[in-house]
Amino acid sequence: MIIAVDAMGGDHAPEVVVHGALLALKEIDCHIVLVGDNAAVNPYLEDEICMERLTVYHCSETVDMGESPVKGYREKKDSSIRVAFELLKTGRADAVVSAGNSGATIIAGIMASGKLKGVERPALAGILPGEKGDVIVVDVGGNVDCRPHHLYQFGIMAEAFAVSCFGMKRPKIALLNIGEEPGKGNDLVKAAYDLFAKGPFDFYGNIEGRDILSGKVQIIVCDGFVGNVVLKISEGVAESITSRLIRGLDKRSGVFNDESFIRDFKENLDYAKYGGAPVLGINGVCIVCHGHSSEKAIKNAIRMAYSYVHNNTGEKLLNSLEGLRSM
Amino acid sequence: MIIAVDAMGGDHAPEVVVHGALLALKEIDCHIVLVGDNAAVNPYLEDEICMERLTVYHCSETVDMGESPVKGYREKKDSSIRVAFELLKTGRADAVVSAGNSGATIIAGIMASGKLKGVERPALAGILPGEKGDVIVVDVGGNVDCRPHHLYQFGIMAEAFAVSCFGMKRPKIALLNIGEEPGKGNDLVKAAYDLFAKGPFDFYGNIEGRDILSGKVQIIVCDGFVGNVVLKISEGVAESITSRLIRGLDKRSGVFNDESFIRDFKENLDYAKYGGAPVLGINGVCIVCHGHSSEKAIKNAIRMAYSYVHNNTGEKLLNSLEGLRSM
Repeated sequence: MIIAVDAMGGDHAPEVVVHGALLALKEIDCHIVLVGDNAAVNPYLEDEICMERLTVYHCSETVDMGESPVKGYREKKDSSIRVAFELLKTGRADAVVSAGNSGATIIAGIMASGKLKGVERPALAGILPGEKGDVIVVDVGGNVDCRPHHLYQFGIMAEAFAVSCFGMKRPKIALLNIGEEPGKGNDLVKAAYDLFAKGPFDFYGNIEGRDILSGKVQIIVCDGFVGNVVLKISEGVAESITSRLIRGLDKRSGVFNDESFIRDFKENLDYAKYGGAPVLGINGVCIVCHGHSSEKAIKNAIRMAYSYVHNNTGEKLLNSLEGLRSM
Repeated sequence: MIIAVDAMGGDHAPEVVVHGALLALKEIDCHIVLVGDNAAVNPYLEDEICMERLTVYHCSETVDMGESPVKGYREKKDSSIRVAFELLKTGRADAVVSAGNSGATIIAGIMASGKLKGVERPALAGILPGEKGDVIVVDVGGNVDCRPHHLYQFGIMAEAFAVSCFGMKRPKIALLNIGEEPGKGNDLVKAAYDLFAKGPFDFYGNIEGRDILSGKVQIIVCDGFVGNVVLKISEGVAESITSRLIRGLDKRSGVFNDESFIRDFKENLDYAKYGGAPVLGINGVCIVCHGHSSEKAIKNAIRMAYSYVHNNTGEKLLNSLEGLRSM
């Protein structure tokens, strides 16, 4: 399996991305193509092992974080993200991983690979560390203004993804809302509720924000604006609380000095565990990472790309969507 | 000052509400009218001090949590929330505090007291425990489908509230969005951005979910759907993390047994600190509490009602809105 990694994407690229890729090579049985500027990437590759499973594919441009995704894709024909998807399209890679401009990554994925048959809007699936296991939230940023049937498609795709990549048997699925009762919420969610209630899901109904990590459900569906806010707030609150905890413990180091406790505690809340969010619904495998991803997050995103390809997740999505079309 | 407290509102009413009111009487120089069923309320008042500043105002009905707010208000003429607002309207109370059906409370406030001149949509202002002080988020549940100028009014009212009740000098205000750059977001937020940029604010621009507690801004504006999700997720994540911490510490009680640390840590994250969310924009003072409010949260909501009345916050909102009308 060959995974194309956008070496130029991310706040600390290429250094952190290259280190993440090298970590991945030590743990995952794949070949990695680092797509980026030779001169920028090569200094981080000196004295490394695993080099026989690593290639650098040179390109000269980068789509920056603030740049317009569509414009960036169209005008920068030799940008790392576009070139990575060219490799995917032409069969020279099986998946793309990028911590760059996420809008540009999704657009490049759609433009280069196209959408799976029947998909109107590909969506980003975020994974949160719930109290009783992982919780998949979709969409977390691809689609800011949605219609009810878009949410429905997100649900179909998220379920296929959960079953394929997480081994969930029959995940419970819910709509994120401001109250549990049917009839609550904004126009979008009220209309989506009726669709989900008739759909092929183990549909929990509405779930409130306070319960997203509680384990009541394994999949939470919302529009990409709300989902992105959810993802970032969960991370922000988790980081804020953890840093307050550590500051508090530092002050009392006489009493608290069990570093392994802190490490375990942070590990348990680690939003870098899965490293990235897969783009569900494009005709190819793509994992989008945070701009500020750590080496570990990049490594874990590569692991998710591996799992997505290895489990034929794309085909399973297609089968689920087939069911949708025949309804 | 007389504060009418809806004794029948909340998951643990009337017991927790009555206890919260009694706590408040010990700390706050006010008179409290408990509005509720005599037979249900009186058992919790035996052997209490401060009784000279407490009255029970009997009523026979309650609007339940799942009930339609408008229907509940119209049909249950002797409901505790409606009667509480009648006391406000007729000058027999200066403020209303309720942990009951929040939709019904807001509707009752609007129906009984009317809106402040110029206000289209009253809004709920939630208060979060930020890293560098309190953060006001508005709207957190009143208005699920908003237009850009509604968000603008929320900003005007929130600023007046922050200055009046929190002593903030010139709070920084931001729109909650999925990226910091102008031009990001859904149609609503993009249009609101242009209004805020021209407004009388110290406008930070867009803020992302991860930064809501960071202290970059003191006021965050969003529609009531997103705001309600934000509030509940922040609470949910904070509770989830705190309970994991405590479970973790329990397991290692040999090493960690400093209860005061845990207490301080929880205190610092305490979403009950302010007890409730004021309804900004009605012609009267009303604090909405969570259904699951603790005694302490009820007490603190009564304190906020006291502060709101004491600081003439309503008049300050009216003045700010006056500026808006003359624009």
